[in-house]
Amino acid sequence: MNPVLEYFKSNIGKSGAEVSPSPLGRWLNGTLLEVNEGSLTMEFLVRKEMCNPGGILHGGIATSMMDDIIGMTVFSLGNQVFYSSVNLSVDFLYSAKPDEKLIVKSNIVRIGKKIAHAEGEIRNEAGQIIAKCTTNLVATSNTIKT
Amino acid sequence: MNPVLEYFKSNIGKSGAEVSPSPLGRWLNGTLLEVNEGSLTMEFLVRKEMCNPGGILHGGIATSMMDDIIGMTVFSLGNQVFYSSVNLSVDFLYSAKPDEKLIVKSNIVRIGKKIAHAEGEIRNEAGQIIAKCTTNLVATSNTIKT
Amino acid sequence: MNPVLEYFKSNIGKSGAEVSPSPLGRWLNGTLLEVNEGSLTMEFLVRKEMCNPGGILHGGIATSMMDDIIGMTVFSLGNQVFYSSVNLSVDFLYSAKPDEKLIVKSNIVRIGKKIAHAEGEIRNEAGQIIAKCTTNLVATSNTIKT
Amino acid sequence: MNPVLEYFKSNIGKSGAEVSPSPLGRWLNGTLLEVNEGSLTMEFLVRKEMCNPGGILHGGIATSMMDDIIGMTVFSLGNQVFYSSVNLSVDFLYSAKPDEKLIVKSNIVRIGKKIAHAEGEIRNEAGQIIAKCTTNLVATSNTIKT
Repeated sequence: MNPVLEYFKSNIGKSGAEVSPSPLGRWLNGTLLEVNEGSLTMEFLVRKEMCNPGGILHGGIATSMMDDIIGMTVFSLGNQVFYSSVNLSVDFLYSAKPDEKLIVKSNIVRIGKKIAHAEGEIRNEAGQIIAKCTTNLVATSNTIKT
Repeated sequence: MNPVLEYFKSNIGKSGAEVSPSPLGRWLNGTLLEVNEGSLTMEFLVRKEMCNPGGILHGGIATSMMDDIIGMTVFSLGNQVFYSSVNLSVDFLYSAKPDEKLIVKSNIVRIGKKIAHAEGEIRNEAGQIIAKCTTNLVATSNTIKT
Repeated sequence: MNPVLEYFKSNIGKSGAEVSPSPLGRWLNGTLLEVNEGSLTMEFLVRKEMCNPGGILHGGIATSMMDDIIGMTVFSLGNQVFYSSVNLSVDFLYSAKPDEKLIVKSNIVRIGKKIAHAEGEIRNEAGQIIAKCTTNLVATSNTIKT
Repeated sequence: MNPVLEYFKSNIGKSGAEVSPSPLGRWLNGTLLEVNEGSLTMEFLVRKEMCNPGGILHGGIATSMMDDIIGMTVFSLGNQVFYSSVNLSVDFLYSAKPDEKLIVKSNIVRIGKKIAHAEGEIRNEAGQIIAKCTTNLVATSNTIKT
């Protein structure tokens, strides 16, 4: 197992506020449930400040949750280069309210030398899909210092 | 002029933290610069907590800024029904750092009886495009009480 | 089983050129392999005229294949209204050459009263993903005469 | 002016069937109206075989028209490397019928060393938007032999 994935595994059960290297990840404050090569699962709690004027989870924060864990998942593969998001396409299927627990999963479909392609999804505790996304990331020239 | 648009115009120069009906809009805390029928411009300041592990604006927050003002723009048209986001497709073109000012603009391309189609973009003060999006919204059965 | 799905099942093994109600579907000329409630599989043969200047399957035709069978799949659900595409987001993962056989699958994720959400994917015979898409369709006011 | 752009300019008024290096481009058979650095305009005639079961322009062919001219536009910039489509996101706004003339335009928003970002749109003769798209392309390792 690569050392980055090993480090992620040691963080299972910990909250984003404690361990996330992403400032927004600390604000989103998910709890890492599971991590494997190319897939990661986190649980998030919807807070009022994450909501839109209708009082339901803001589409931008749903996107943030998926984008954040996809970045973590790509990073957990242990590659030496940094991948940067090129685009993200998100579909909103159902609403979520404050105090709901959401299960957010990522899946790396392809990790090419130039382009990585990944999917994300958010489900509520009843298993209903709240949102899903696909995204492409480009390998940058920046190496990662660990 | 419809009364909702008139209300928005009275908020020019005010911050999201003061006047936004969107809890996330208060957190994003943009300042309304301009609003017209079908288009709205806000200025946002990038804060550290809005960033990803690379220390630059998180794609999810860039998305949130655009999605939030597009919702405001559709609302400002004064229709009696609530429009809900169906999908959003965002492209990330350039990075933004903490303390940068961003100019975020919306444009409603079509407001149909069933589907509205809109665009958003974020530029930095030098005019460079940071991100752009397109989104479709569906007219729901929920009427808006004002 | 609804009569439309039953009709589709009677067309398994037949070619688009023979039975497709879609003029483009006749040109694409896929062969129906399988159809179930909310999912359909067709096989297509890449022809030279379907290719781009690089001599590989044109992204627009990959999109056409997925869009066409998603339309068929929504129709096969037997609803009385016609669904029209609102948007489609496609990712291109691998190339395909003339004379390759492609397996194209659809999956209806949600069929709401207003919006349907579906996915499509194209794989080659080795099982490698060539392209995938997500799409939203809106229920129109047009009823279907059968 | 780079020689590729010069060549394109010499093809203004000619049809795709005559001059397109794209097999699908010959089938789509547009007429080149205008070409500049980073933008290109073609006119297409909707034919019955380009339509869906509803008798209107198939979304996949609308996508093909935009994707094809975006590829031409990137190529016309005269770069030595081949750009390959990573993703394409298309929105369908209005229908088009057989025998309608469509004006299709491309616009290269950014041409980076790794990623190019472009937009396309289709309008009818009355100026109404039929479809629009955004797309990202990746610079491949393949050099172009001219």
